Amino acid sequence: MPTRIFFNEVVTRDGFQNEPAFVETADKVALIDELSQCGFAKIEVTAFVSPKAIPMLRDAEEVMGRITRRAAVQYTALVPNVRGAERALEARVDELNLVMSVSQTHNLANLRMTREKSFAAIKEVVTQVNGQVPINVSLSTAFGCPMQGQIELNEVMDWARRFADLGVRGLTLCDTTGMANPRQVRLFSDAVVSSLGRLELTMHFHNTRGMGLANVLAAVESGITSFDGSLGGLGGCPYAPGASGNICTEDTIHMLQTMGLETGVDLERLIHLARALPGLVGHPTPGQLAQAGRACDLHPVPEHVKAMLTH
Amino acid sequence: MPTRIFFNEVVTRDGFQNEPAFVETADKVALIDELSQCGFAKIEVTAFVSPKAIPMLRDAEEVMGRITRRAAVQYTALVPNVRGAERALEARVDELNLVMSVSQTHNLANLRMTREKSFAAIKEVVTQVNGQVPINVSLSTAFGCPMQGQIELNEVMDWARRFADLGVRGLTLCDTTGMANPRQVRLFSDAVVSSLGRLELTMHFHNTRGMGLANVLAAVESGITSFDGSLGGLGGCPYAPGASGNICTEDTIHMLQTMGLETGVDLERLIHLARALPGLVGHPTPGQLAQAGRACDLHPVPEHVKAMLTH
Repeated sequence: MPTRIFFNEVVTRDGFQNEPAFVETADKVALIDELSQCGFAKIEVTAFVSPKAIPMLRDAEEVMGRITRRAAVQYTALVPNVRGAERALEARVDELNLVMSVSQTHNLANLRMTREKSFAAIKEVVTQVNGQVPINVSLSTAFGCPMQGQIELNEVMDWARRFADLGVRGLTLCDTTGMANPRQVRLFSDAVVSSLGRLELTMHFHNTRGMGLANVLAAVESGITSFDGSLGGLGGCPYAPGASGNICTEDTIHMLQTMGLETGVDLERLIHLARALPGLVGHPTPGQLAQAGRACDLHPVPEHVKAMLTH
Repeated sequence: MPTRIFFNEVVTRDGFQNEPAFVETADKVALIDELSQCGFAKIEVTAFVSPKAIPMLRDAEEVMGRITRRAAVQYTALVPNVRGAERALEARVDELNLVMSVSQTHNLANLRMTREKSFAAIKEVVTQVNGQVPINVSLSTAFGCPMQGQIELNEVMDWARRFADLGVRGLTLCDTTGMANPRQVRLFSDAVVSSLGRLELTMHFHNTRGMGLANVLAAVESGITSFDGSLGGLGGCPYAPGASGNICTEDTIHMLQTMGLETGVDLERLIHLARALPGLVGHPTPGQLAQAGRACDLHPVPEHVKAMLTH
């Protein structure tokens, strides 16, 4: 088992993206600045997409411009194409994150183009960026497609290798709609670690069916050391309204820390932010730790029990 | 890894016990009868305690008398003492479940007696019952006490051995307030399986801090094959109001089934019951699967995507 785990906090992009009510730019900036102080390896700040496509992230430039950057944190952003990459570079992001689905059906439904077209678009970005910043590719529906069903490992590996050959730095396998199970995660993680260990490999799990942290455990047992997480577990799934979305960062970090793994994250500080999040988005969030406290946060012994203990 | 996992459904005892509004006897009977048809190995029907202590379970005799028993299911009940055991035997339960805490502080707070007094009371029940039905002992706070903190493995093992020597059939290690982590679960499970493998060993996890299913995975990897679960994840924790309680049976069974493990449980039927549960208790329940559906429940491909797929 590894001893050090790295976190990419995605709440202000993947989390906010699903929220109906606009979060004010100043609130986004304040939250990212707070997150920067928590010890994350990476923060996915925003997405440089059309303001019409995702109105919530229409302030991408302003957010990137106003945050206080810390040297220890990599600030990444989602970009869909060359135009987005140009905007992101202009805003001095540290890394670009590009997305395509392993499922043809999901790629057509979500990005309205075939996987080959998506691959060509990503290749164009890689060529244009020409090494100015590292590139990460997120493979959506890598563990299952809500319309197409099971995804075969060899299909994931074929796409992963094609992106590795393009020279990307990192690859994220995304369980977009929470279909992965721990046995599958072990299988897929073992395969990518052994064939593509030269890449920075990240797992992006959803807790849609309650398996999120079990899948993290399975991935860690296979040597995966980088994970996406969302503060409070924010970020729903359009195919399962009402169900949980992204794994909750503080719940995940708490589990790993209680197991003795180092995450570099100040958990107390993070819980503080998680407890403020419902106020920011206007509804409760699915994370457990903000409600229950850490396992080490003990409760006082009642007086009558104290009396019995000493007699 | 084992291939067959056995479930003890505790919703009508451990789940209902924490509910503020009385669930009608007829509704309890109907639910247990439905659960009996789902393929559970065991159902913890009720508790034979003082009606003043737990008004919700004041109808223990009537519930046991009215359910339709199936030969494949063991109907168990919680009993606190000899009086409770007599009532339970009278009601023809298949097994008695007795409880004490590994934490002295928690035992004093919860049962208002020392652990030695609890041990003596359980010994008295074992003697009186004299093999008429098998006995299970549930060790509360086996993975941590909300007041006392960490619980050492050797303390758990000492109590476990004393109960094994009394001749009980089964032992349940309970993570009463959701403090266990997967590494600890592996450690504790390995120890009980190797020293006390002759007992029927059950794990009772709570999802208070989101680690419930990760802990199940860890236990299964150590060879544990029996688990308690509560329909819908019903059953809170008095030390963490608002947080999840027991692990959700249908979420857990879904995870194990998608991993290829046999549980004997009809998951579709169970999800049906889980979806009806909020109506019975008057509030939403924390289980995810009832909202998200199984990973294999696919969504229709939109027409415009179908058109793109065929061209």
